[in-house]
Amino acid sequence: MKIAIAGSGAMGSRFGFMLHRAGNDVILIDKWPAHVEAINRDGLKGDFNGEDFVEKIPASFPEDVHEHIDIVFLFTKAMQLDDMLQSIQPILSQDTQVVCLLNGLGHEDTVEKYVPKKNIHMGNTIWTAGLVGPGHIHLHGNGSVELENVEPEGEEKAKEICQLLTDAGLNGKYSDNVKLAIYRKACVNGTMNGLCTMLDSNMAQLGATSTAREMITTIVNEFADVAEAEGIILDRPEVIEHCISCTDPTTIGEHYPSMHQDLIQSNRLTEIDYINGAIARKAEKYGLYTPYCKFLTELVHAREQVLGAK
Amino acid sequence: MKIAIAGSGAMGSRFGFMLHRAGNDVILIDKWPAHVEAINRDGLKGDFNGEDFVEKIPASFPEDVHEHIDIVFLFTKAMQLDDMLQSIQPILSQDTQVVCLLNGLGHEDTVEKYVPKKNIHMGNTIWTAGLVGPGHIHLHGNGSVELENVEPEGEEKAKEICQLLTDAGLNGKYSDNVKLAIYRKACVNGTMNGLCTMLDSNMAQLGATSTAREMITTIVNEFADVAEAEGIILDRPEVIEHCISCTDPTTIGEHYPSMHQDLIQSNRLTEIDYINGAIARKAEKYGLYTPYCKFLTELVHAREQVLGAK
Repeated sequence: MKIAIAGSGAMGSRFGFMLHRAGNDVILIDKWPAHVEAINRDGLKGDFNGEDFVEKIPASFPEDVHEHIDIVFLFTKAMQLDDMLQSIQPILSQDTQVVCLLNGLGHEDTVEKYVPKKNIHMGNTIWTAGLVGPGHIHLHGNGSVELENVEPEGEEKAKEICQLLTDAGLNGKYSDNVKLAIYRKACVNGTMNGLCTMLDSNMAQLGATSTAREMITTIVNEFADVAEAEGIILDRPEVIEHCISCTDPTTIGEHYPSMHQDLIQSNRLTEIDYINGAIARKAEKYGLYTPYCKFLTELVHAREQVLGAK
Repeated sequence: MKIAIAGSGAMGSRFGFMLHRAGNDVILIDKWPAHVEAINRDGLKGDFNGEDFVEKIPASFPEDVHEHIDIVFLFTKAMQLDDMLQSIQPILSQDTQVVCLLNGLGHEDTVEKYVPKKNIHMGNTIWTAGLVGPGHIHLHGNGSVELENVEPEGEEKAKEICQLLTDAGLNGKYSDNVKLAIYRKACVNGTMNGLCTMLDSNMAQLGATSTAREMITTIVNEFADVAEAEGIILDRPEVIEHCISCTDPTTIGEHYPSMHQDLIQSNRLTEIDYINGAIARKAEKYGLYTPYCKFLTELVHAREQVLGAK
């Protein structure tokens, strides 16, 4: 069985590394020349919970892959997903299983343009990973993956993929309501990311302000309204407290969320269109109004442009 | 006739200076010791359209004024208005006329707590002024003042005050719809101030973003909804274009609005509660929802707290 990682940044490299180390035939696909070249020349290097490793895994640009692929794990940045799917379309056969584990919302619409629904699995992971430089990753801590088939007939395949992940130490868990988990995680991103980016703060600093609870509550309620229009019922008070718990300075509150790292620290464009922006677009489709998500998306885009982010 | 300027910062000092220079009996009231002392020691100093001046005007702390006052011009910062009115209450007689020319909305509610409605005049000025240091102001350019009595019986007094201002070169204009002018100006403040503060940008940088028009349009519509609930009909497309015209880099676009100067440049608390915050509070009272104003108010307060503004 041949596994491809489409988008082999930090998280894609973690999955590729752990699946390969477990004995699977894996290829890392990426569009960053320095990264692909370093992996092919020196192997994928890094430290895995403090222990150094060098793993010889083949890496390739999308257009250079010609073999049949059984399972593709999608791990691009949200805004590169469509482009990646277009590039790898030639290697997707009619039974290639495609697993989408990207953060954010609305990716199934993109995947469905290129992959039959019966072959799509949507999921959610709490693993973390850091990219130190080309071909070099930092893997620390524990995690798991939840996933679910999009169509009922994909259930058996989804369960096989979960087993494959578990066998590789990635703790695959079959879910019968993965959309709920995706929305719940999106609420965290939809509050911490945009707010900390606009406030130039970490999560604890946000949480210490007198208006944080009101802003977080309103945003979570907007996510929950849209989720409800899709038949997914969020436990609103639980999700609000879950988001607020991220601001606790004694746990993870001192961290800057990824969007702050992207825009404020690295001057890169953000994924706001796939978090609050996705809610605003979906809301419009369902005849709902989600002004906090809409305004936050507009503000973050304006801030990107004021900063000249790329 | 005795005139008091209650709140003698940059703008109050301009009015005090021009009224005094025109032969009126004026007292400057302020709570900033260094400023009051400098004026009493050295006179009010500054340049007036490029010409240096020293004007000997008495200055005083509110509690040290005991004489009868005929006209009070209120020129405090919005958040100091209530405190100032409380302090000068002993010198307000039953026929003291009170003119409120502060930026922002909702001040009449504060003034009415201390002054009979028949003596209140609300207004709006496009004069500018800069405070260089204690007792030292910079006055450049031209301007005018619009004002109107709150109760019908105050009309004659309002017209007398306009004449007094005009005689002093301050171009007083009696208005029969000053609330419209106040709302129109509040729309400029309600878009440029909060947005440029959150984006850390000048008005031209805001105007150059792809989302500026959408944000400005939504905010102006929220102001117009609340104005309508008060019987004031804004010409929405005209006001939207008026606000957008402030972002023109060939006119005033390169300027940073006052709220940016307050918070980002000087780490001072902002007047957001009297601009977008006033709209959100009024909206609640009228059963309306103005989420952009509400969210912007919450964001600016959070940013004040993250920055430790005072």
